[in-house]
Amino acid sequence: MIRHQDDHLIHCQRCQDQLQYLINEVKDHHITRGSLLKLVEHETESSVPARAVGASILPTPFPKARYDEAIELQQAYCELYMRVASDPDWLYKVLEPLKNHDRFFDVLWEVYEKVREAGAVQNVVCCVFRNDYMIHQPPDQSEAELKQVEMNTFSCAGAAHAERIANVHKHLARVRDCETGPSSSSSTALPSNGNVSSIVDMLQTAHTIYTSRNPTPHQKCILITVQPFNFNVADERPIELALWDANIPCYRVEWRTLVSHTTLTSDHTLLFKPPFGSAEREVSVLYYRGGYVIEEYKPSGRELRIRLEISRAIKCPDILTHLAGFKTVQAALTESGALERFLPDQPENVQRIRRTFMHMQALDTTPRGRHFRATATYEPCSLNQPAVHMPSQPSDPGGGGWVLKPNRDGGGHNVYRAAILPFLRSQPEEGWGKYTMMQMIEPPATEGTLMASEGLYHGAVISELGVLGTCVWERKEGGGVGVVMNEVGGWTFKTKPVGVDEMSVVKGFGCFDCPMLAD
Amino acid sequence: MIRHQDDHLIHCQRCQDQLQYLINEVKDHHITRGSLLKLVEHETESSVPARAVGASILPTPFPKARYDEAIELQQAYCELYMRVASDPDWLYKVLEPLKNHDRFFDVLWEVYEKVREAGAVQNVVCCVFRNDYMIHQPPDQSEAELKQVEMNTFSCAGAAHAERIANVHKHLARVRDCETGPSSSSSTALPSNGNVSSIVDMLQTAHTIYTSRNPTPHQKCILITVQPFNFNVADERPIELALWDANIPCYRVEWRTLVSHTTLTSDHTLLFKPPFGSAEREVSVLYYRGGYVIEEYKPSGRELRIRLEISRAIKCPDILTHLAGFKTVQAALTESGALERFLPDQPENVQRIRRTFMHMQALDTTPRGRHFRATATYEPCSLNQPAVHMPSQPSDPGGGGWVLKPNRDGGGHNVYRAAILPFLRSQPEEGWGKYTMMQMIEPPATEGTLMASEGLYHGAVISELGVLGTCVWERKEGGGVGVVMNEVGGWTFKTKPVGVDEMSVVKGFGCFDCPMLAD
Repeated sequence: MIRHQDDHLIHCQRCQDQLQYLINEVKDHHITRGSLLKLVEHETESSVPARAVGASILPTPFPKARYDEAIELQQAYCELYMRVASDPDWLYKVLEPLKNHDRFFDVLWEVYEKVREAGAVQNVVCCVFRNDYMIHQPPDQSEAELKQVEMNTFSCAGAAHAERIANVHKHLARVRDCETGPSSSSSTALPSNGNVSSIVDMLQTAHTIYTSRNPTPHQKCILITVQPFNFNVADERPIELALWDANIPCYRVEWRTLVSHTTLTSDHTLLFKPPFGSAEREVSVLYYRGGYVIEEYKPSGRELRIRLEISRAIKCPDILTHLAGFKTVQAALTESGALERFLPDQPENVQRIRRTFMHMQALDTTPRGRHFRATATYEPCSLNQPAVHMPSQPSDPGGGGWVLKPNRDGGGHNVYRAAILPFLRSQPEEGWGKYTMMQMIEPPATEGTLMASEGLYHGAVISELGVLGTCVWERKEGGGVGVVMNEVGGWTFKTKPVGVDEMSVVKGFGCFDCPMLAD
Repeated sequence: MIRHQDDHLIHCQRCQDQLQYLINEVKDHHITRGSLLKLVEHETESSVPARAVGASILPTPFPKARYDEAIELQQAYCELYMRVASDPDWLYKVLEPLKNHDRFFDVLWEVYEKVREAGAVQNVVCCVFRNDYMIHQPPDQSEAELKQVEMNTFSCAGAAHAERIANVHKHLARVRDCETGPSSSSSTALPSNGNVSSIVDMLQTAHTIYTSRNPTPHQKCILITVQPFNFNVADERPIELALWDANIPCYRVEWRTLVSHTTLTSDHTLLFKPPFGSAEREVSVLYYRGGYVIEEYKPSGRELRIRLEISRAIKCPDILTHLAGFKTVQAALTESGALERFLPDQPENVQRIRRTFMHMQALDTTPRGRHFRATATYEPCSLNQPAVHMPSQPSDPGGGGWVLKPNRDGGGHNVYRAAILPFLRSQPEEGWGKYTMMQMIEPPATEGTLMASEGLYHGAVISELGVLGTCVWERKEGGGVGVVMNEVGGWTFKTKPVGVDEMSVVKGFGCFDCPMLAD
C-alpha cells in the first residue's frame, strides 16, 4: 500500500496497481542488474548477501533547459578545474589557512610536497569529475536557476548505479510508451546514460598514452585501489570488467594491501604482482576508488600515497587534483577575479559558470571570511535570514539558510542552518577556517515516488544532477595545461524527500533516479 | 581459510592466496551480474534482499569428447521428443498406468482431453528442452560414457544463471591466461554460453510465426507465466528484457493472477490487459515458468491451464510436450523398438541415443515392470547390487545402485538406494507404477572448489551437463512433425560434492559451474 507524504492513500485503484507493478519491476531489476550494495557485515567466507540501492520508482521531472545548461557547461567547468589543479601556488595560497587545522589537508599537502621534492616523472593526469547541481528557485522567483552544489574530483562513486537505474527507467518508459503511445513522460524525455563506457574510454586513453610513451618489456595494467570491506563493488566492478573486455588488464587492490602488491623501481616505475603469473606488471594508470578519508592515511597510508604519487603511473586523479576538490577551493573560485585567472580566454564561460555559484566563503580570517564568521554567529535569526548582514548581497530574499561544509567527501558531514552556531561554538575558533559556509540552494519541490530501504515514499522531492566529466590532460613545463580529452561523461541523478538535507544514496539519504526532462 | 574435503589445509600459501582472490572475484561478480536468488521471505514493500547462487570457484574438468557427443546428439534428441510430444496415442499408452495414482498426471491429462474436445486451434509448438547428462564410468571401466539423467521439457530453469557463471569463469580464465600464457586450463578450454539469446531467438521465431499468421488489429505480446513469491527472478528477467530489446512486448504474469489479466475470445484468441494502456494485447506466445507443481492446479489452476491451452497462443511448451517430460516416458523410450518408432529414418541416431540410456523402468505391472518391482524389493542386498537379478543385464559390474524417481520436477523428490525399499513399503503397491526406477550413473570424481551458502568445499566432485535445445515445430494433420527450428541452445553445468545425491542449485544442492573441456 503506497501512502502519500501526507499519509493520504493513493485512491485510484488503477494507479495503485500501476505503482505496484512498477515497484515489482524495479525490485527485480535491482537483483537482475546488480543495483545492489554488499551487506559486508553479514558476509561469510562463502556467502555474500546484498541489498538494493535506494531508487525512484518513476522518473522525476527536471527542467530540460537547466539540464542542457549543465551539460553544455561541463567542458568549461572541467577545463577550469584542470587548470586549478595545475596551479599549486594558487592552490597553496587558497588552502594554506587549513594548515595545522585540517588534518586531511596536512596529510595531502605533505604528500604533494614529497612528490615535488622527489620530482614528478609523470605530467599526464586524468580524472572523473562529477559536478553536482540543484535547481535554485526560491518561492518568489519565477526563474529556475542551475546552481552548483559541489565539484567532486576524487573517487567519484555512483556512475554504474546511476546508469543501471537510468536504464531501468528507460525500459519502463518504453513499456508505457508501447502501450499508451508517446507522451510527455515518454522514454525520449529520459536522457541516455553511458557513464561506464565514458569512464572506461578515459582510462583507456590514459593507458594508451602511458603504453606508447613507455615501451618497456613489462606488460602494462591498470590498478583500481579500493577500500577494504567495500560494500559498493557493483559500482566499481563494471569498469574493471569493461577494461578487460577492451583487452586492458585491470586489477583491483585494497588500499591496505597495495604496499605488499606493488614495488617502486629506482626510475619510479610502479610494478604490480598479479595473482597468478610470476612476471610483474607495470602500472599504467592508477584509478583511486579509495584513499579519500583521513583514516586511510594513518599510519602507513601516507607513505603509500607518496609512493603511488611519485610513480610514473598516470593517476586518476593526482594529488593536486584531489586537493582541488576541497570545498575551500570551491569557495575561493567564487571570489572576484578567480575564474578570470583560470579562464582568461573564455569570458563567456566565466559568466556562465559564475551564474551557477551560490554565495560561499571559507570561514577564514580574510575580511570576507570574517564577515561570514559574523554572519554565522549572528544569533537573533539563527542563520535563517543571514543575507541581510551581507552588504555585498543585501537583497537575498530567499532565506533558505546556510550550510557549513568541512573538506570531507562522502556525505553526512555537513551542518545545516540553526545547528551551525552551536557547532561552531563547540570548535576552537582558530580552526573555523577549515569550514566553508554556503548559502543553501532552494530547489522547487517536484513530486516523486521513492523506494529506499526504510520504506516507500510518495510526495514532494528534490533532486540533484551530477554531470560527469572524463578528462585527460598534460601539465606543461612552466605551468599551463594541454587538454588531451575533455568529454561530458554522463550523469548521475539523485532524489530525496523534501526536508532531508544530506544526499548520499549509499548512506541511505536519497535514491538514484532518472530525470524526466520537461520544458 | 579453505579446507580440503579431508580437512587438510591447502598448504601452499600462493595457492591459498589465489583461491582467496578467486573467491572474492566470484562473490563480487555475483552481486554485479545478478547471480542471485531473491530472499522472498525477507522481502518488504520497499526492499528486496538477495543471496548468491551456489557457484564453483574454478571450472571443473569434463571430457571434451563426451561434451561434443552431447552437443552433437541434441538435435536428434529434440527431434525424438518433438515426435513423442506429437503422438498422444503412444503417450497415453505409456502414461495410462499412472491414471488414478499420479494426481499430476490426472490433472494434466484431463487438461489435454479438454483441449482435444475443444479443438486445438494452434498447431505450432515451441519448447526449451534441457537434456541432462552425467559421465558414467564405474571403477573398473576404462571408457567414460555419456549417460542421460533426464529430459526436461517444461519450465527449464537455470539458463541465465548458467550463462552468468560461465562468463565469470571465462573472465577469470582470461585473467589467468593473460598472466601465465595459454595452458590446459585456458579460456579456450571453456565453451562459450549464449543461453539467453538462444531462448530469446526461439521465442522470437514463434512470435513472428504467430504474428504473420494472425494479422489482427491487436498488438501482439509474449506472456511469461511465473510462480508467485518467485525467488528466481534473476534467471527469468534477462529473457524478458532481451525480448523488449528485440521490440517484442513481453509481460510476466503470476500464475494465480493470469485469470484476471487475460480473456479468451470466442475464436480462442488470448487477450492480455497490460498495466498501463487501455487496449488489450493479443498473446502470441505463452512461455511457462510456472505451473509445474500440482499445488498450482488446485482449485482453479486446472481451469486456467485449460483456458491457456485451448487458446491460439503458441505454447512454450504445450500440454503434450509437458507430459512428454514425465520420467515414465523417459523409461518407456528405453524399451525395445521405442526409439525406432519415432526415428525410423535415423538408425544411426537411434544407436547413439540408446547408448546414453541407463537401465530404467516404470514400476508398472508389465512383465518388465514386475521384474523391476522384484528387484526393488529384493532385500538382501538393499538395492546396492540389484543388477544380478536382471537377466537382461546380468553383467552390470558397477553396483552403483538405483534411484526411484516420481514424475515431479525441481529436485528433492528422488529416493536413493537402500531408502527405496522402506519407501515403497510405505506406499500402496497399486500406486508403485507412478515411480520410475533407474540405475544410478556412476560418475568418476574430479576435483573442484565450490562456494555454496553453507560453506566452501574443496575436494571430490561430480558434475551434470545440461544441453539446451530450442525448438519450434508444427504438428501436421494426421500426425507427424514439421520442424521449424531445432537449435542447440546452450548448456548448463552443475557440480556437487561426491556423496550428495540431489542436484538443484536453487535448493542448495550443487553449484553452477563451467566445464573445462579436456582430452
